[in-house]
Amino acid sequence: MLANLPPNTVERLSLYRRRLLNFPFEEKPFIHSHQLAHLLKINPAHIRRDLMLMGFSGDVHKGYDIKKLIKKIGQTIDCKQIQKVAFVGVGDLGRAVAAYFNNADSRLKIAATFRLTEEPKTQYADVHCYNISKMKSIIRKEGIELIVLAVPPSFAKEISKTIISSGVKGILNFTSVHLEVPKHIYIEEYDMISKLEKLSYFTNK
Amino acid sequence: MLANLPPNTVERLSLYRRRLLNFPFEEKPFIHSHQLAHLLKINPAHIRRDLMLMGFSGDVHKGYDIKKLIKKIGQTIDCKQIQKVAFVGVGDLGRAVAAYFNNADSRLKIAATFRLTEEPKTQYADVHCYNISKMKSIIRKEGIELIVLAVPPSFAKEISKTIISSGVKGILNFTSVHLEVPKHIYIEEYDMISKLEKLSYFTNK
Repeated sequence: MLANLPPNTVERLSLYRRRLLNFPFEEKPFIHSHQLAHLLKINPAHIRRDLMLMGFSGDVHKGYDIKKLIKKIGQTIDCKQIQKVAFVGVGDLGRAVAAYFNNADSRLKIAATFRLTEEPKTQYADVHCYNISKMKSIIRKEGIELIVLAVPPSFAKEISKTIISSGVKGILNFTSVHLEVPKHIYIEEYDMISKLEKLSYFTNK
Repeated sequence: MLANLPPNTVERLSLYRRRLLNFPFEEKPFIHSHQLAHLLKINPAHIRRDLMLMGFSGDVHKGYDIKKLIKKIGQTIDCKQIQKVAFVGVGDLGRAVAAYFNNADSRLKIAATFRLTEEPKTQYADVHCYNISKMKSIIRKEGIELIVLAVPPSFAKEISKTIISSGVKGILNFTSVHLEVPKHIYIEEYDMISKLEKLSYFTNK
């Protein structure tokens, strides 16, 4: 892993890899930044800068070697060991994400899902679903480090305290509630209420 | 409504309003930008700029009048008529969002949820859940304009075609698949796979 990449670069590298894994690189082994930019509808300058930041360069005439680029992205952003993730209250939305990580050659594995309901059912093929009362013990037993949290706002603070005291390293927070976390925990917030109000504004201009 | 506000300003105005609605403004009717900034853990310069952009000013000594500010944000970002939203495949994550909009004095209403499963059940108190085969007719019948789309990637393109042809105005896309939409449709993408890979990177540095 390469330390200190900007957050947006890491996100885009993840995106480039996913797109390139679906590219017919056996027939077309090279790609130029403007071609990748066109596929992803983003600015080619971003791509050139992101690849430069991880020390990857292409051939002026042929472009970037796709297989090497995919490998380099993995070496740059993936953790060395398997890292386990749990979904708390995420429901259907997690299914596709779980399928991606648990089938692909990925270092991230969705290890458990937790629900607030009394009798949870197994929701995804390989992922066991537990009642939330078992969260702390399962997080510790499984060594889960990342949490996707999507519970109703009234539960958010209480549940996040349990999560924090279980020793996780990162939280993707969908609760629309700002969580107080210690400095060693990396938190990424997504506020669907604000996003919907934004969508409403821009569709009513 | 005030046209042409930057997207991030609209999102933050939504956030300020939600936070201020929970503030004890009957006892403390005024707030300074640095106090609001502290509550929200954001830069006070953002707040001053956002409020200036919507033409709202405070008293140098007392700060902003909270009731007036809440009202002004509503006049600035809310649509004049009720605007209807549907959730497609969102599941549990939508419950809290539906509760917020359908109980509050909000112009956005979650009018329907759609699921891919054969026999959907009603998931939220007031929101009916339909099988996805009925989506086009329900969107038109209910006059639904905004869609939150969270189906597995393999379904994304097909379902988005149906959504686009149903005449919606905006899509919040959680499928991790880039959707091609006509220019009159406002799209906001959220890629959970990239966010998780970012979280992994920053918790392994």
